[in-house]
Amino acid sequence: MLIEDRLKELRDKINAKVPAGITISQVEFEGPELVIYTDEPKKFADQEDLIKVLARDLRKRIVVRPTILEDPETAVTKINAVVPENAGISDIFFDPDTGEVLIEAEKPGVVIGKNGATLREITKNTCWTPKVVRTPPIESSTVKQVRQYLRSIKDERKAFLRTIGRRIHRDVIAKDHWVRVTTLGCCREVGRAAFLLTTPESKILIDCGEKPGSATSTPYLYVPEISPLSSVDAVVLTHAHLDHCALVPLLFKYGYDGPVYSTPPTRDLAALLQLDYLDVVKKDAGRQPYTSNEVKEYLKHSITLNYGSVTDIAPDIKLTFHNAGHILGSAVAHFHVGDGLYNIAFTGDFNYQKTRLFSPAVSSFPRLEAVFMESTYGGSRDLQPPREEAENKLYEVVNRTIEREGKVIIPAFAVGRSQEVMLALEEGMRKEKIPKVKVYLDGMIKEATAIHTTYPEYLNTDLRNQIFRDGLNPFLAECFVQVDSSELREKVIGGEPCVIVTTSGMLSGGPVMEYLYALAPDERNTLIFVGYQADGTFGRRLQKGWREIPMGNRETLVVKLDIETVDGFSGHSDRKQLMNFVHHLQPRPEKIFTIHGDEGSTIDLASSIYKRYRIETRSPMNLETYRMV
Amino acid sequence: MLIEDRLKELRDKINAKVPAGITISQVEFEGPELVIYTDEPKKFADQEDLIKVLARDLRKRIVVRPTILEDPETAVTKINAVVPENAGISDIFFDPDTGEVLIEAEKPGVVIGKNGATLREITKNTCWTPKVVRTPPIESSTVKQVRQYLRSIKDERKAFLRTIGRRIHRDVIAKDHWVRVTTLGCCREVGRAAFLLTTPESKILIDCGEKPGSATSTPYLYVPEISPLSSVDAVVLTHAHLDHCALVPLLFKYGYDGPVYSTPPTRDLAALLQLDYLDVVKKDAGRQPYTSNEVKEYLKHSITLNYGSVTDIAPDIKLTFHNAGHILGSAVAHFHVGDGLYNIAFTGDFNYQKTRLFSPAVSSFPRLEAVFMESTYGGSRDLQPPREEAENKLYEVVNRTIEREGKVIIPAFAVGRSQEVMLALEEGMRKEKIPKVKVYLDGMIKEATAIHTTYPEYLNTDLRNQIFRDGLNPFLAECFVQVDSSELREKVIGGEPCVIVTTSGMLSGGPVMEYLYALAPDERNTLIFVGYQADGTFGRRLQKGWREIPMGNRETLVVKLDIETVDGFSGHSDRKQLMNFVHHLQPRPEKIFTIHGDEGSTIDLASSIYKRYRIETRSPMNLETYRMV
Ligand SMILES: [Zn+2]
Ligand SMILES: [Zn+2]
Ligand SMILES: [Zn+2]
Ligand SMILES: [Zn+2]
Ligand SMILES: [Zn+2]
Repeated sequence: MLIEDRLKELRDKINAKVPAGITISQVEFEGPELVIYTDEPKKFADQEDLIKVLARDLRKRIVVRPTILEDPETAVTKINAVVPENAGISDIFFDPDTGEVLIEAEKPGVVIGKNGATLREITKNTCWTPKVVRTPPIESSTVKQVRQYLRSIKDERKAFLRTIGRRIHRDVIAKDHWVRVTTLGCCREVGRAAFLLTTPESKILIDCGEKPGSATSTPYLYVPEISPLSSVDAVVLTHAHLDHCALVPLLFKYGYDGPVYSTPPTRDLAALLQLDYLDVVKKDAGRQPYTSNEVKEYLKHSITLNYGSVTDIAPDIKLTFHNAGHILGSAVAHFHVGDGLYNIAFTGDFNYQKTRLFSPAVSSFPRLEAVFMESTYGGSRDLQPPREEAENKLYEVVNRTIEREGKVIIPAFAVGRSQEVMLALEEGMRKEKIPKVKVYLDGMIKEATAIHTTYPEYLNTDLRNQIFRDGLNPFLAECFVQVDSSELREKVIGGEPCVIVTTSGMLSGGPVMEYLYALAPDERNTLIFVGYQADGTFGRRLQKGWREIPMGNRETLVVKLDIETVDGFSGHSDRKQLMNFVHHLQPRPEKIFTIHGDEGSTIDLASSIYKRYRIETRSPMNLETYRMV
Repeated sequence: MLIEDRLKELRDKINAKVPAGITISQVEFEGPELVIYTDEPKKFADQEDLIKVLARDLRKRIVVRPTILEDPETAVTKINAVVPENAGISDIFFDPDTGEVLIEAEKPGVVIGKNGATLREITKNTCWTPKVVRTPPIESSTVKQVRQYLRSIKDERKAFLRTIGRRIHRDVIAKDHWVRVTTLGCCREVGRAAFLLTTPESKILIDCGEKPGSATSTPYLYVPEISPLSSVDAVVLTHAHLDHCALVPLLFKYGYDGPVYSTPPTRDLAALLQLDYLDVVKKDAGRQPYTSNEVKEYLKHSITLNYGSVTDIAPDIKLTFHNAGHILGSAVAHFHVGDGLYNIAFTGDFNYQKTRLFSPAVSSFPRLEAVFMESTYGGSRDLQPPREEAENKLYEVVNRTIEREGKVIIPAFAVGRSQEVMLALEEGMRKEKIPKVKVYLDGMIKEATAIHTTYPEYLNTDLRNQIFRDGLNPFLAECFVQVDSSELREKVIGGEPCVIVTTSGMLSGGPVMEYLYALAPDERNTLIFVGYQADGTFGRRLQKGWREIPMGNRETLVVKLDIETVDGFSGHSDRKQLMNFVHHLQPRPEKIFTIHGDEGSTIDLASSIYKRYRIETRSPMNLETYRMV
């Protein structure tokens, strides 16, 4: 059927269901959604169940928009006129994708007004649908810039969403029924995640990352399965770590022109980390695989979905993200193929234990036949101490160092581990397990933390409650001090005993090096590794016992500071949690593929799962294709 | 390096090695060969080891051709003038691909002359290199037509071979090293054989067959792995059965324009069976997937290789055919990838026991890491009686039928099984195990038999010796009578007790039906099944016990004739022979993939091989890709 006929048919169906007095001016696919344009969005909204009924009957995600939206500049003036000044509006963000206006305010209640009276006034005056959020406690320049950028290209983006919408809702023409997965990277290795899910109708690329420590190893993007890139329907990002998202912008350079689906925090963190990746490559005098222009292309083509939202991303494929517990916004990507034909989940990286920031990964799905699961700690001896034990060891080392008037350096990745360590330190001080010293944050950590506080709904309930109900935002604790100048860095180095949390996590550059050079000769200080140190990194060498650092000019720096490793802050499930995850999978899948781990770990995990649960397992190699059904 | 520079370099190397007095006029890649053009082909030929040395040093297949070849018409006159008339020349065939002239004669010795004097005379007079073969005892019109056709397009073909030659010898540019196999059909099923062997540099398609009994099931030629078809470097045919070659002409319709490698008998049998396939489809009122024009395209692009000849077919792939013992010209295709990177064999269909026609399949290879092996009789209970037992049962049934004055109908495939049965019957009569009755051959059997006698070097040594040394060509035994008219068919039906060997093998049409309708009502007659009757065929129904044949007009024919099944004439290895083959594989491969069998058989065989030999096995599904290295 022609897409125009299809839209007309949908419009007729909708007209038949809406009560008299509501006029439908237009019906259009925009991205994965069916948008109903009406002159009476408020009347529509009053019919509380109407949208739900339409969504169920038409089997589409429905969005209702006013036919005419007030011009944003005028709307701002009108909103400011209606909302009392003491609301403390800090930002107003118009999202033309959704027809919503996001109002950030110190006091959301004042913006809402008595029984929502102020909100209704805003709708009446501007036609935009207002959403109110508390002003994030720490402002993220990334989030601000991403929003500004998307606003600046709103017309182009609308056209893009319509094109994609029509493509998603095209007719299914193939007669064959099969589902295949091709491994383009990340098999029997950690890094360059890239998996291609294909049906006779559609092609979906899941992740497209770099291989850390190997500038030349990209996923196998040149094989015919994925050529030309314009034949790919959608890219789906599980999370923002570079081994999963670094090369997404490259796809646009090579001809991809479709959507990239992720959660909202993943979109913002990915852009932040991609830009940082370009910086690091440049500093290493490497060839940048793409420029910030392609990062913009990525943002232009990004479509965000929240956990649990079932979304058409191809004529025969629905995607749902579920919490993966690994980092902010990390998701298990669940695909429902065909009309009940097949269900397959890609875990991305996941943590099956509760952490200070996140709930454990979701392990229940409406349906499930196959799982591609990470195996970073899949080896039978890859056990991590419990989080509490790890924290106690951290406290112990910090106490010992501060007592002897030393300073603690904790190298950490900006996203994930840093925030976990911050929360542990904050609670340690609040509960008087460690002395109340300053915790200096250097590198990208502050910005990453700010993004965390922009998306409180992606943190676990305890932390969210602590922040909003108890008003105790641990990220805002006064112990934390951002270091944003060389002068301050020097002051820190010459100052009181303290803790310094800084990037890079594996001592491969970044501000941590300055601290290390300055603090290494003093045996009172301590360097604490809280994360995995990859082979070949400077961090690994120190961990193995090197005690001399070549400084150029034939000088060497003798390392005298204490070096400690505290395991247990990992964002990954350890072996026991991986097995536990499989044990709790609902429903029990037919097949499990172990990926994202070294050869030994993936094979060991695959064979242990088979032995214990009698589920068919595979430890695939790169460049293989498996038939699911 | 540019191909012209490469050729110049080769020419310099050759010039450095040839003795003074031999001028090299040109060096050119033609198909897989490096052709050296010289004005003194005879001088070249006198240096016996020269070609061998060049082949070894340059690592190329070397062919030497005269710069100027006599025009074929003039050459014929000159040859006839030189060769004494009593040689009985029956055909002269010029092969411009090789610069050879094939002289068929009743008395080859007379053409050769004393110590080869006549041959030398021919070379001197015509510049063509003469090869002499005995006039085939039965003339094959297929072979004749194929040769005529190739002669008629010799200029076009020369251009094609040069293009392919340059393509084969292009520089290897990829830096990655991997070898993959994608299954496009014939997995967990019998039929539509099609496997894609790929490296970063090259794509080779092995077989491209139909699925018998399912007009719509073709190999998965639409998937991106093999798109566009013009990206395929070579098609390799294991043998001429339609489940392996029927859709090769279709490839040319869809844009393939490269070579198709096979043994010479496979080329001729394939063309014969493809044309017959088109006829059968037409009679079934089905849509012909291609026309005889595409069969011609196939022939135009065919390149024949004999067993044991190691041949470059892509910049990084060498192909060698080895006897597979299944039908005339059937081959195990062995691929050597890279410079010692990987070796993989596709068995095609094979027989690991000696038969009356063929030697057992080859099981030793210079190197071998992986095998894709057929599993038609791979189930643990798929045992066949020994050939002798099968023949005795055949004799017994024939004796019983002839004694009671009945006629025997043996439905059989034209290629393979028919000839085995013919030889068994001939020996049975010669050794007086059965009475000397006429054996009528109807359908394509005579033509297929003629092709067998054209290629005696593809028969086993015993049979070849019997034909040439002992002058006892069993195919020429007087018991065999070709039926080529309806009148004769009626005479046979109304005549003396006899044996009728005729197509089709599964009673799905063909002359066998006429015999059956006429002879079914008489209980003295016997129908003997010597081959597998597929589900859904009329043969299977009779085998299962049906005794009424609907004849249209509400009439039914009551079947009274005796129905017998004689197992053991199969051209496939049975379960025991399959295991035996694996046992004797030299060297022992790392991986075995079981294909070309129903799901149960392939899985059973794979798991039995693993259990007994601890070789990694897989029973792949269609549309999967396996990484070899
Ligand atoms: Zn990660
Ligand atoms: Zn990862
Ligand atoms: Zn675009
Ligand atoms: Zn066969
Ligand atoms: Zn076959």
